[in-house]
Amino acid sequence: MLFPFFAAAVFLVATVSANLRRYEYIKQFKIERPQKPQQVRYDPTWASLDTRPIPQWFDDAKFGIFLHWGVFSVPSYKGAWFWDFWKGPQPQLDVVQFMQANYRPDFTYADFASMFTAEFYDPNYWADIFSSAGAKYVVLTTKHHEGFCNWPSKYSWNWNAGDVGPKQDLVGNLANAVRQKGLAFGTYHSLFEFFNPLFLRDQANNFTTQDFVREKTMPELYELVNTYQPDIIWSDGEWMAPSSYWNSTNFLAWLYNDSPVKDKVVTNDRWGSETMCKHGGYYTCSDNFNPKTLQQHKFEDPTTVDKLAWTFRRNLKLEDVHTMEEIIAILAQVVSCGGNLLLNVGPTKEGTIPPVFEERLRQTGQWLSVNGEAIYATKPWTHQNDSATPDVWYTSTRADNGTVINVYAIVLTWPESSNLTLASPVTTASTTVTMLGYNTPFSWSPLPNSGLQIQIPAIPFNQLPSKWAWVFKLTGISN
Amino acid sequence: MLFPFFAAAVFLVATVSANLRRYEYIKQFKIERPQKPQQVRYDPTWASLDTRPIPQWFDDAKFGIFLHWGVFSVPSYKGAWFWDFWKGPQPQLDVVQFMQANYRPDFTYADFASMFTAEFYDPNYWADIFSSAGAKYVVLTTKHHEGFCNWPSKYSWNWNAGDVGPKQDLVGNLANAVRQKGLAFGTYHSLFEFFNPLFLRDQANNFTTQDFVREKTMPELYELVNTYQPDIIWSDGEWMAPSSYWNSTNFLAWLYNDSPVKDKVVTNDRWGSETMCKHGGYYTCSDNFNPKTLQQHKFEDPTTVDKLAWTFRRNLKLEDVHTMEEIIAILAQVVSCGGNLLLNVGPTKEGTIPPVFEERLRQTGQWLSVNGEAIYATKPWTHQNDSATPDVWYTSTRADNGTVINVYAIVLTWPESSNLTLASPVTTASTTVTMLGYNTPFSWSPLPNSGLQIQIPAIPFNQLPSKWAWVFKLTGISN
Amino acid sequence: MLFPFFAAAVFLVATVSANLRRYEYIKQFKIERPQKPQQVRYDPTWASLDTRPIPQWFDDAKFGIFLHWGVFSVPSYKGAWFWDFWKGPQPQLDVVQFMQANYRPDFTYADFASMFTAEFYDPNYWADIFSSAGAKYVVLTTKHHEGFCNWPSKYSWNWNAGDVGPKQDLVGNLANAVRQKGLAFGTYHSLFEFFNPLFLRDQANNFTTQDFVREKTMPELYELVNTYQPDIIWSDGEWMAPSSYWNSTNFLAWLYNDSPVKDKVVTNDRWGSETMCKHGGYYTCSDNFNPKTLQQHKFEDPTTVDKLAWTFRRNLKLEDVHTMEEIIAILAQVVSCGGNLLLNVGPTKEGTIPPVFEERLRQTGQWLSVNGEAIYATKPWTHQNDSATPDVWYTSTRADNGTVINVYAIVLTWPESSNLTLASPVTTASTTVTMLGYNTPFSWSPLPNSGLQIQIPAIPFNQLPSKWAWVFKLTGISN
Amino acid sequence: MLFPFFAAAVFLVATVSANLRRYEYIKQFKIERPQKPQQVRYDPTWASLDTRPIPQWFDDAKFGIFLHWGVFSVPSYKGAWFWDFWKGPQPQLDVVQFMQANYRPDFTYADFASMFTAEFYDPNYWADIFSSAGAKYVVLTTKHHEGFCNWPSKYSWNWNAGDVGPKQDLVGNLANAVRQKGLAFGTYHSLFEFFNPLFLRDQANNFTTQDFVREKTMPELYELVNTYQPDIIWSDGEWMAPSSYWNSTNFLAWLYNDSPVKDKVVTNDRWGSETMCKHGGYYTCSDNFNPKTLQQHKFEDPTTVDKLAWTFRRNLKLEDVHTMEEIIAILAQVVSCGGNLLLNVGPTKEGTIPPVFEERLRQTGQWLSVNGEAIYATKPWTHQNDSATPDVWYTSTRADNGTVINVYAIVLTWPESSNLTLASPVTTASTTVTMLGYNTPFSWSPLPNSGLQIQIPAIPFNQLPSKWAWVFKLTGISN
Repeated sequence: MLFPFFAAAVFLVATVSANLRRYEYIKQFKIERPQKPQQVRYDPTWASLDTRPIPQWFDDAKFGIFLHWGVFSVPSYKGAWFWDFWKGPQPQLDVVQFMQANYRPDFTYADFASMFTAEFYDPNYWADIFSSAGAKYVVLTTKHHEGFCNWPSKYSWNWNAGDVGPKQDLVGNLANAVRQKGLAFGTYHSLFEFFNPLFLRDQANNFTTQDFVREKTMPELYELVNTYQPDIIWSDGEWMAPSSYWNSTNFLAWLYNDSPVKDKVVTNDRWGSETMCKHGGYYTCSDNFNPKTLQQHKFEDPTTVDKLAWTFRRNLKLEDVHTMEEIIAILAQVVSCGGNLLLNVGPTKEGTIPPVFEERLRQTGQWLSVNGEAIYATKPWTHQNDSATPDVWYTSTRADNGTVINVYAIVLTWPESSNLTLASPVTTASTTVTMLGYNTPFSWSPLPNSGLQIQIPAIPFNQLPSKWAWVFKLTGISN
Repeated sequence: MLFPFFAAAVFLVATVSANLRRYEYIKQFKIERPQKPQQVRYDPTWASLDTRPIPQWFDDAKFGIFLHWGVFSVPSYKGAWFWDFWKGPQPQLDVVQFMQANYRPDFTYADFASMFTAEFYDPNYWADIFSSAGAKYVVLTTKHHEGFCNWPSKYSWNWNAGDVGPKQDLVGNLANAVRQKGLAFGTYHSLFEFFNPLFLRDQANNFTTQDFVREKTMPELYELVNTYQPDIIWSDGEWMAPSSYWNSTNFLAWLYNDSPVKDKVVTNDRWGSETMCKHGGYYTCSDNFNPKTLQQHKFEDPTTVDKLAWTFRRNLKLEDVHTMEEIIAILAQVVSCGGNLLLNVGPTKEGTIPPVFEERLRQTGQWLSVNGEAIYATKPWTHQNDSATPDVWYTSTRADNGTVINVYAIVLTWPESSNLTLASPVTTASTTVTMLGYNTPFSWSPLPNSGLQIQIPAIPFNQLPSKWAWVFKLTGISN
Repeated sequence: MLFPFFAAAVFLVATVSANLRRYEYIKQFKIERPQKPQQVRYDPTWASLDTRPIPQWFDDAKFGIFLHWGVFSVPSYKGAWFWDFWKGPQPQLDVVQFMQANYRPDFTYADFASMFTAEFYDPNYWADIFSSAGAKYVVLTTKHHEGFCNWPSKYSWNWNAGDVGPKQDLVGNLANAVRQKGLAFGTYHSLFEFFNPLFLRDQANNFTTQDFVREKTMPELYELVNTYQPDIIWSDGEWMAPSSYWNSTNFLAWLYNDSPVKDKVVTNDRWGSETMCKHGGYYTCSDNFNPKTLQQHKFEDPTTVDKLAWTFRRNLKLEDVHTMEEIIAILAQVVSCGGNLLLNVGPTKEGTIPPVFEERLRQTGQWLSVNGEAIYATKPWTHQNDSATPDVWYTSTRADNGTVINVYAIVLTWPESSNLTLASPVTTASTTVTMLGYNTPFSWSPLPNSGLQIQIPAIPFNQLPSKWAWVFKLTGISN
Repeated sequence: MLFPFFAAAVFLVATVSANLRRYEYIKQFKIERPQKPQQVRYDPTWASLDTRPIPQWFDDAKFGIFLHWGVFSVPSYKGAWFWDFWKGPQPQLDVVQFMQANYRPDFTYADFASMFTAEFYDPNYWADIFSSAGAKYVVLTTKHHEGFCNWPSKYSWNWNAGDVGPKQDLVGNLANAVRQKGLAFGTYHSLFEFFNPLFLRDQANNFTTQDFVREKTMPELYELVNTYQPDIIWSDGEWMAPSSYWNSTNFLAWLYNDSPVKDKVVTNDRWGSETMCKHGGYYTCSDNFNPKTLQQHKFEDPTTVDKLAWTFRRNLKLEDVHTMEEIIAILAQVVSCGGNLLLNVGPTKEGTIPPVFEERLRQTGQWLSVNGEAIYATKPWTHQNDSATPDVWYTSTRADNGTVINVYAIVLTWPESSNLTLASPVTTASTTVTMLGYNTPFSWSPLPNSGLQIQIPAIPFNQLPSKWAWVFKLTGISN
């Protein structure tokens, strides 16, 4: 019987860094977790693959870190599409001029690789940041559209981090460090590559040939899974050809049936031009997908702290960086609607997380250390946000039978007056109201129809549990 | 008659970015401002030079930005002494190993210069940051101990920013940008150079020869003054030899008597091994000079946002960065004791201000936009801090005759209870208490001997005027 | 009917740059030239493939140029095996120390590629040198053991001359230039690659897998043939595995039966660990193969002008360079024994032929312009060298029926006395003796048994036809 | 008494590598050698300085090597004026385009310095080449117009070979190696520098200021002399200003009167815009100065093996290289007219002498090993060349009283017939004719008026003493 072992493993991943109190509410929820994982085998069809439940640990995790790191981190300008902007079919003038102004005429994109030095790369320190941020998983670009593998792939000779540039296994080193902190580890992988000549020829052949898939992208994807046993496969670069070209369903059938990660692995929805928001594991639907309304299918919002790019930009300005208020708001909104937030930062070519990002992440962790009860392992409540007061987002915890136990109102803006009106909750006699991180219960009074008004006492500034958003915990709510 | 023009210019520099209200209190103070500047001429002796009053604009300014930028920004490791740590008489093992691990054996410090690219250098954007920070002046390292001139000096051929690396006049471009924002511009200049062979020979000759002074350091200092007309000469690198070796008094006599900046220029105290904290203009005494007790002589505290270095370090971690609480505390303490704060940040070799520094500076500006009244153009009060309650620092404004008009109590830590006790002020019947940025006056009651207790109302979080320190303005105080 | 067209093409390649006189003797020899080429088809077995006659143009050509050019031309130290010497299983200490002394620790071999600039590469000038040298074909390393393709191969992305370094098609550009001068063009191609991970895995699998062959080395070999239609495939790197691993016989069957070069192409004998000196086209047997005795099978001696390396070495000394005397001696010896000389020079990373090599080649051409009659399209004579006088090597021309027409005695050392004794030729009454390049016939007298003694007149220095070796042409020799 | 020591030293320099036979004829000549050197002192006026005799060793030496090595050896394109061609007042289009095509826009000339690696520099090997070439002295560019010092000068910080690039004392290392081989060592030094800002300012001031002379060019010239005690000061870069600007006469007076090399040092004539071919030591008059007629004043012909440049050019072609015939011709002509030949080659940035140059030099040495008797320590004869037969140049040896002992006819072209006609020598009964390197005396017969006809026997090719020019030694000639 596999289950106890698997469940233990999941808990290990999901909870090592959580405190005991948090453990209390995580263990109550088992919804959707398969009783007998892998009793079934999947066919390489979407009809079959789509029936696989998403492993519970992912829904409980809520918050992960996304890292865009690669050769594009060397020019560190405009983002991960730099090469395409420079040499692609529709060049961007500023990128072309940037290269003309700063590099010799024959400079090639490949020449950047030797400057991808990573001399300050300290994966344990990174893992400390991510763990302190309260993230439960980390997803690294193992290969972006540039085709450069951040691990020493057999299928990308002299165009991988073992052979040139960092001279080390960036993927493996991060996987180890992150897992030692109890976080899950996912691998972003782009199916397509801007300029791979095999891809370009398949494309010119209208995707009637699959040389690129057979010789490059699939061999390395299998290699990735077998080598690093990722908890998530974050596929991308799928839009140019249907999943039949990419052989995606065959890969996923193997992944779910026979791979070393068949029980725990989570996948997304980017597997072919027809799959986004429709097939695969959880949905991502688009970059920065923050629907603000309850979703039927598990989703994840990949959002980047630098509003303009997924990668580190050397000319990053403060005004491009999301504020803490914005980050907490996105987190609350996404979780309230049933999603996970995958918050992205771009490391530097030297191997560091820029301090402004480190600060955003650690401050998110400060907020979660107080308010994580309203996030981790929660379920969406009946309403994702309040029907009367703006900037109030709801989550809940539920018993196995689905009965609501607690409702959490995440208040993004401090009430102008000393009263907070919540229109959506239906109170009962036993209703209590507290604020996470503040001990004393608050007084409240019911509103005429439904809802309640909470009296907020004069809390001295330095006793406020948070600077960016405050969670009101309601018990005894009748729905 | 020079004075009106000069006074106007000083006001321009000091007040363009200030609002009208601030102008009100600035214009009340004329203490120490010479009625007839330059009636006198100075001899090249300390006895004479030390009699020159410090131009008033500097005392009013209170807050400046210090920038350490140079070839050391390329290795961007350990700081401005990198070269000395690597090749000096007492090498630091980690620097030696850093070079061994990352560069070819014959790599020289001079080889770094071509990588000092400054391709993203936008002096107007820098000036915007500094102005938004509330700084009133900016001091740039025009030449640090490495000897590299950030301007195209005639006396440092092939070892200046015009000939190699940036290929532009970094000094002139910043001077223009900063002055367009109404800020004053100062030039840091190191007298000595680690490895200049002329200096080393003079040193070996026990400073009985002055070839280095005659051919390098003095010619370029005169060139600096004549070319950029700096508002401040921030001298450094003086400690190895007496001022008689450096010819400092001759230079200062020229500077004060005949140079194009003779009326406005401010200097510091680093002009020879015997001068620190004793001779010259204002005192700096030491790096990070925060005496926490009232000073007899005008001083400036040069303090760096990165607690470990004056220059940008590529491996900067968040924990190395002063928090806003710490920065505001230092500013309050220094001004309370009669000093200016010269807050340092290290730009990158690419020519950017790292966003974490930009954020600290802009947030300082947010604080000053509310609380600047307690900083700019203030005078120390009788007590620099409260005798009973810790973390309370005082400034004041005074009438021409010295009578105190307002006392400002800068409270670094929000009171645990809703009462704030101040033991030092002696109240009168007409005493009023307000908080800067908050309209309603506060109730207070006198304490038995002296002092008062202020009742703090329940201010909603989003009506608090500041997150880091709060200024209580007291009028009608009897001293 | 293909033959007339083919024959014309072969003549074009082989003779455009030859003068009319040379054409005279070339056209007399048709030995081994297939009357009906390609009537037969070959099976992918050595038994079948070995029956294919070597195209006549190759035997007539006698003298070709070999070029070792690649990324190894950047370190330009120790030769084409630099990478293996540095990072291979048995590192050479001096190479390891060279890298430690001159490059940063993380420098990789791939980093050399961007310095392979070829900015002075002028293939037309190269072709002029080779043509002036009297060479009839040129063989370029299109890919050496390092795996770097000198053409923009689809199968070696980012590790080819189109993507990095030269940013051009080195192979195609040379092929065009060389052919415009009437020379044939051959492609050196290494089957194995030192560090290709696919090869290493096949090797680790004891060559039971063929991933490397299927995905890298064979696709690019077919690509080479189809793109450049080489006149010679100069295979190498075969020794590590049997031809069954390399799929060599399948390739050769295609090459001989169906490829665009099936009629003209010449191959060598390096197709598997069991083939050298046994199977394939002409034999090379070993580097610097100069057997000095008549060979049964057509062979070629690949010999390099730099005695120590095939590639340009930046630390080349004059003493390492073969003298003209040595070069002419090797040419005479090799041709006398039935072989071709493939004389190697190493171009620089900048794309130049070092002048010392240019001089050797042009001087060889000066010698051939006088003495080519004794080299091109000749046949070995009964004796390869004289049985009495050392340093005398023989070639001959023959009628279609094999009857000897002329015998050429190539005398490498000028006779000490004014008589030259040749013991091997059997003279007749009609025997005449002349020296190529000198008009007047020489007197001679028969020796007792066989042989003759030639009287050499006093030829003024500046009327000597050559400085390095002299050809005595004998007619009317009875065998 | 200085003389014996000095004379011994001169002999050491001039003769260590010569064989005994040569010593015989060297010791016969003492013409012009001062009996009591340095009895006199010189004034800093041309009238006085020009009276100093040129030390005898220089006249005896006849043949030296010139080396142009510096930062210009890195671009290694167009020559030592590269910087001026690129950035000077009249840029050369091809140089500008070369930089645009191959370097990033902000690349500076100073950036080349770090690529001046000299990793293969072996001064002992160089000295072996020069000694084998038969040269008696070596002149190195210690500083060319670019201002880069090949020694670690105190006056050119960060722009010298000790601080950047080679990281060693190129001058000192060569001086030692060359002197160990018994050769003299000279230092080329350019007075002016293309872009030194101090020079440019002096120039803009119409040379009424001398800052550059005082702070840069003179201090380093004194430093050179005191440090390396050069046998020759080969001054250059003088033409832009009169010697009064350069302070040349003061320097020379010190050099001749008080410097450590006052007895042995030789100087040339490039000391100011008015001095060339008029003042100083020996005359150079122009580059490639080969007057072909007897000169009244000792001269030297600086000529470069690469006909197009003094420095190594990476795109050097064979056709640009002087042939051995040309080199021997120039040597014969120059010595016949009373001059020395200073034959130039350009080392590479790696520190090697390109093999084509090494071959020219060593072959010159082969020629001199046979024919040096007609060159070293000879005196011009009555006629510098023959009045009837072209390409015949004369030298002679003389007794102390000036009487001719031997006449040497250097025949550049082998006579078409077996007779050589010399019209200029007046024979006597005791006249004998031999060929250097060939033992047997030749028959000759007098011509009607003066002159003689020499009968040349049939010398087998391999007994010819030389391939490039032949020396007929005549004794008993009556003038």
